[in-house]
Amino acid sequence: MKLYNYFRSSASFRVRIALHWKGLPFDYLPVHLARGEHLQPDFAGKVADPLLPLLETDEGGQLVQSMAIIEYLEEIHPTPPLLPADAWGRAQVRALAQAVACDIHPVNNLRVLRYLTQTLKVDDDTRTAWYRHWCRQGLEAFERQLERLVAAGAPDGAFCWGDAPTLADCCLVPQIFNARRFAVDLSGLGRTMGAFDACMVLDAFRTSQPSACPDAEA
Amino acid sequence: MKLYNYFRSSASFRVRIALHWKGLPFDYLPVHLARGEHLQPDFAGKVADPLLPLLETDEGGQLVQSMAIIEYLEEIHPTPPLLPADAWGRAQVRALAQAVACDIHPVNNLRVLRYLTQTLKVDDDTRTAWYRHWCRQGLEAFERQLERLVAAGAPDGAFCWGDAPTLADCCLVPQIFNARRFAVDLSGLGRTMGAFDACMVLDAFRTSQPSACPDAEA
Repeated sequence: MKLYNYFRSSASFRVRIALHWKGLPFDYLPVHLARGEHLQPDFAGKVADPLLPLLETDEGGQLVQSMAIIEYLEEIHPTPPLLPADAWGRAQVRALAQAVACDIHPVNNLRVLRYLTQTLKVDDDTRTAWYRHWCRQGLEAFERQLERLVAAGAPDGAFCWGDAPTLADCCLVPQIFNARRFAVDLSGLGRTMGAFDACMVLDAFRTSQPSACPDAEA
Repeated sequence: MKLYNYFRSSASFRVRIALHWKGLPFDYLPVHLARGEHLQPDFAGKVADPLLPLLETDEGGQLVQSMAIIEYLEEIHPTPPLLPADAWGRAQVRALAQAVACDIHPVNNLRVLRYLTQTLKVDDDTRTAWYRHWCRQGLEAFERQLERLVAAGAPDGAFCWGDAPTLADCCLVPQIFNARRFAVDLSGLGRTMGAFDACMVLDAFRTSQPSACPDAEA
């Protein structure tokens, strides 16, 4: 498999974690988002929407959208799992993943931040305040959801759902990396940061982090 | 089951479609987003994040995030299906759904539009331009993806994926309703609007549309 991605793209990072967690080998094909390489014909000509990540299978099939890619990997390579065994647990883990992937990340990705500065002409402080607002608000809700789930009987482990990482952790961890880049306040998020810390001792997460990528920059 | 929702909430609309398509009865509990009822203790006290929809099961369990809710309904009530039978098809349908739910909708929902006007103090024209920019860009990408999928061998039917609605249509249709509210240019989107039209002759979609809801307003 080939993964078109970028070391700092958090949606790409989610898929790298899943591939490493499942022990699936892949070729790492860097596309430099910040330099606009995704908009050049080499990449943009391949896809309907010039977004990362793109996973190409050995048969040449294309998969896009990080959560859809991870669900596919889960179906084709179910062990080790990234979703709980029961429908209720899967629903809760998917909801946690979507709390990041639908409520926090899209408002703060590169193209939205660029629109703020280039089209709306907001200054750097306003842009940073925008980022921090949505990220902090979303992570506070994430924390409350983790608390509610455990109070409602969810497995109470070190990770978002029990004692092993799931799709929820695959989405959370890249978001925390981004939050730190923008110096978002991460205080008072005990369960959330506990899950982050539990993930970051695992090889699959460490190997996938931006600084460990072939295209990493300081 | 009880669905806390709002006639104009497109994430709620997705779940209404799924419930109606699967013939699952539910109590419709309106929460008036525009009046801020979701922020009042009656609703906000129930959930980690005051977002719609919220589905409460007959056992009192809570499900949030529209795509996670629909996946749950699909697992518990698989007939009639809202996902293809094969993993590849499921991945493509999920990716189409996420193209709407992760790339178009989050940037344009009520709280983001409010931040634009209340915090960034943008005028109405700028806010509308923002909406149209992301919506049109996202729908053009959606259209290209439908074309690419058929060219790559996907079932070529009236809907987003073949001859029956799927999770992708559940997400697309509410987005088109929103696009029309904001007078987004929908020209040149043949496959996309064809899928919309195919859906809107079905009872499950007609019954779920905003104007057919108990809390509908003119």
